[in-house]
Amino acid sequence: MSDVARLAGVSIKTVSRVVNDEPGVHPDTAERVLAAIEQLGFRRNLGARNLRRGMSTGTIGLVLEDVGNPFYSVLTRAVEEVARQFGRQVLTGSSAEDPARERELALEFCSRRVDGLIVVPAGMQHGYLVPEMRAGTPVVFVDRPAGDVVADTVLVDNLGGTAAMVDHLAGHGHSRIGFLGDAPDIFTASERLRGFREGCARAGIRYDESLVVMGPHAEPNVTTEVTRLLAAGATALIAGNNRITVMVLRALSTVPQRPALAGFDDFELADLLDPPVTVLAYDIAGMGRAAAELLFARMEGDTSPPRRIVLPAHIIARGSGEVRP
Amino acid sequence: MSDVARLAGVSIKTVSRVVNDEPGVHPDTAERVLAAIEQLGFRRNLGARNLRRGMSTGTIGLVLEDVGNPFYSVLTRAVEEVARQFGRQVLTGSSAEDPARERELALEFCSRRVDGLIVVPAGMQHGYLVPEMRAGTPVVFVDRPAGDVVADTVLVDNLGGTAAMVDHLAGHGHSRIGFLGDAPDIFTASERLRGFREGCARAGIRYDESLVVMGPHAEPNVTTEVTRLLAAGATALIAGNNRITVMVLRALSTVPQRPALAGFDDFELADLLDPPVTVLAYDIAGMGRAAAELLFARMEGDTSPPRRIVLPAHIIARGSGEVRP
Repeated sequence: MSDVARLAGVSIKTVSRVVNDEPGVHPDTAERVLAAIEQLGFRRNLGARNLRRGMSTGTIGLVLEDVGNPFYSVLTRAVEEVARQFGRQVLTGSSAEDPARERELALEFCSRRVDGLIVVPAGMQHGYLVPEMRAGTPVVFVDRPAGDVVADTVLVDNLGGTAAMVDHLAGHGHSRIGFLGDAPDIFTASERLRGFREGCARAGIRYDESLVVMGPHAEPNVTTEVTRLLAAGATALIAGNNRITVMVLRALSTVPQRPALAGFDDFELADLLDPPVTVLAYDIAGMGRAAAELLFARMEGDTSPPRRIVLPAHIIARGSGEVRP
Repeated sequence: MSDVARLAGVSIKTVSRVVNDEPGVHPDTAERVLAAIEQLGFRRNLGARNLRRGMSTGTIGLVLEDVGNPFYSVLTRAVEEVARQFGRQVLTGSSAEDPARERELALEFCSRRVDGLIVVPAGMQHGYLVPEMRAGTPVVFVDRPAGDVVADTVLVDNLGGTAAMVDHLAGHGHSRIGFLGDAPDIFTASERLRGFREGCARAGIRYDESLVVMGPHAEPNVTTEVTRLLAAGATALIAGNNRITVMVLRALSTVPQRPALAGFDDFELADLLDPPVTVLAYDIAGMGRAAAELLFARMEGDTSPPRRIVLPAHIIARGSGEVRP
């Protein structure tokens, strides 16, 4: 800050006033201070972040897949809570799994000068964020990693968790397990598929591709696929996320002989269904908090190498996954 | 705009550039234009809104009770969709039913110069928003009306809907109906209680205060209250919102003799529970869309008197409400 003061020929107090948007500074003086900040290239280092913040809108941006999905709404609420502690407001936007829209939202937020960005990536290419990151806007990826950028990321253990689900079902006697995953170009979906394969290998079950159905899914096709999987001899099903679990449950509601079922992601009322639904659960709010805390640490000047936080997941056995074949 | 151009001694094109934040205008000129806008009091009329928009952050603010509640997350998504059509981003914040926090969030959004504000009121006093509204920031209240301000409001038919629920249960032979409502200082809760009374009167059922339990509710006390209501002879229950319905369902899961149950608000999986839950449903996304469309109409210059839109609700009979006493 003292370099800026010296270059602009003003006191440190004046620089502080300008960056904090406080009154009492002549516009010409403010402009000189801003020019000095620019000239010293502060935007490229730690000082920049602190200075930039003062000039910012006091917001952080959160790009989600769909705020209407309970998974993301819980995550949003957790991010809001942390942001509030730091006196920031949260801009949210839903990409609807469209990489172009994710990019549009993220850049839109940057152009509105957010102090930081939390992104649930829809796409696999994030080079477009590199200039923003270099200019001092921290970016944390959550739920899914960035495609081609090394950056802070908070994930759940997709692979290990899904393998544990296979292990759980195999432990109850199942060797024909159907897997309904999300679209294979989604990181979590492909990792969970990998976990499914690894779980099969570990449990000594032959991996049968005909028992795997990847998305995107919609209600009618899930009903058709579930019927097909059961006809193909599947005695247990793994649903790859909370949306798919709900669709599978709906499809199964008309099936007399219920297969075992385990779903990735816990969801409200899972315990009240008949049978109660066995799920792979993890701390979704904790995921949002971890991402937000990482973001604010960066905004506060943490320049350590990018971190990857992987949250553990654990099985909650409620009944649907403990049905024998 | 031509008045501003004349007063500032610049072309209309330059005024347009300034209000749209486009490059190529000398800072001194921009300042003269902004001063002219201020001097002409444009902030107080239609022109102000359009001009103001150009100077704004291109955002609207949405103050909710809790974005983690599925009701509000669906509403948020709908608001996001409309905002996107108008090229705006959405700032969200959760008040957690705290009037002070609602006020803090709303004023915080205003100080960040949102183009408009959608508020789910936590409190009953909204005089604090009058200066913002007078200065040209449109405010739409949704789900609950403002306490002491005449403003655009989008509601559901709380009273008529609840009366219809009583009628539905009475039609299936119930005359001892328990009512579990939210905190009585919440508008929707008190309206639904009024609807309960009116429904009882219409159905010729004696209104029994001992069968009414108002919130706020938490899991353990709901279990206690449900047990008490059943002991008091209630053969049917009305749950006052989606959160309470879920708590009642959890409480009832340990009760051998199930009373009839109808819940205000539809919710995911209601159809898959055993028995499937009868609810009073309405278009939550439509509520968010209506609020956002009203807001954008105001931002576009609609100066007609404040409107109150009341959305209809209808019973979805799924089974739990059709159990006989």
